[in-house]
Amino acid sequence: MRILSKSVLIPILALLVGLGGGFVLGGYGEAKKTEPESNEIFEELVLSHSALSTTEFTQYLKLVRQGHADRLPFLLEIRLDSSLLDLARTYTPERDSQGIAARALAMARDYRAAYPHQSDTPWVAKEVQAALALKTQPAESPAKSSTTSE
Amino acid sequence: MRILSKSVLIPILALLVGLGGGFVLGGYGEAKKTEPESNEIFEELVLSHSALSTTEFTQYLKLVRQGHADRLPFLLEIRLDSSLLDLARTYTPERDSQGIAARALAMARDYRAAYPHQSDTPWVAKEVQAALALKTQPAESPAKSSTTSE
Repeated sequence: MRILSKSVLIPILALLVGLGGGFVLGGYGEAKKTEPESNEIFEELVLSHSALSTTEFTQYLKLVRQGHADRLPFLLEIRLDSSLLDLARTYTPERDSQGIAARALAMARDYRAAYPHQSDTPWVAKEVQAALALKTQPAESPAKSSTTSE
Repeated sequence: MRILSKSVLIPILALLVGLGGGFVLGGYGEAKKTEPESNEIFEELVLSHSALSTTEFTQYLKLVRQGHADRLPFLLEIRLDSSLLDLARTYTPERDSQGIAARALAMARDYRAAYPHQSDTPWVAKEVQAALALKTQPAESPAKSSTTSE
């Protein structure tokens, strides 16, 4: 093996040391930069969500207090539909390790079986049907894995 | 100014080039690593929020369908209280550049003025009072700045 001369080796080593040090510093800098940014995004999300909830619940309550409580079920069914669409769009068994989404879906499925409701908007009605039919991990019988020997 | 010899200058330059390149690569690597991670956290948030909404709206609707619609206003007032607490906790004028939170708060303030309600839990009642009294940017009269000459 040919040994590299000192005049070539030292700059190469310096370059490697620099690359390594720079890589660590750059990664650290970026991590520090995105960390408070993520927190800020999270707080902004909480604020915008709480603003929407404040508006929503105030409007429901105004309807009730002004004697229009009969309009409420219609609005609540729309909100249930939109929650089901969001749930189905984002569901993966990995994201739902606690089975909270699976239980919520099962509850909605039972409710809609007992009190059928369908959106007036055809694509919403269709998507909601698909969402309700979604197969989730904990919704499959836990006994199944002990009876089959796979 | 004394000129550095080539044998010193080249390794220093190599070190600097390495540091610069490494810094960029490290930052890029970290950004690439946290980017899909943030998206994943966001999707998880949407899933868990939609699961909670699905449960919540199903329960409201079950109450209505089972003839207990009279219990709904009490539950909606609790949800309005909790939304107001979240809003007040996270509000800053910078985060609310569109004034959505300010308008939501103003709407809730008008509603509670017309239909007073107070939580049975003393600290919640107190915090909600404070939330409703929160000064927000767009809630301050826009005419004020043109009449005062500060």
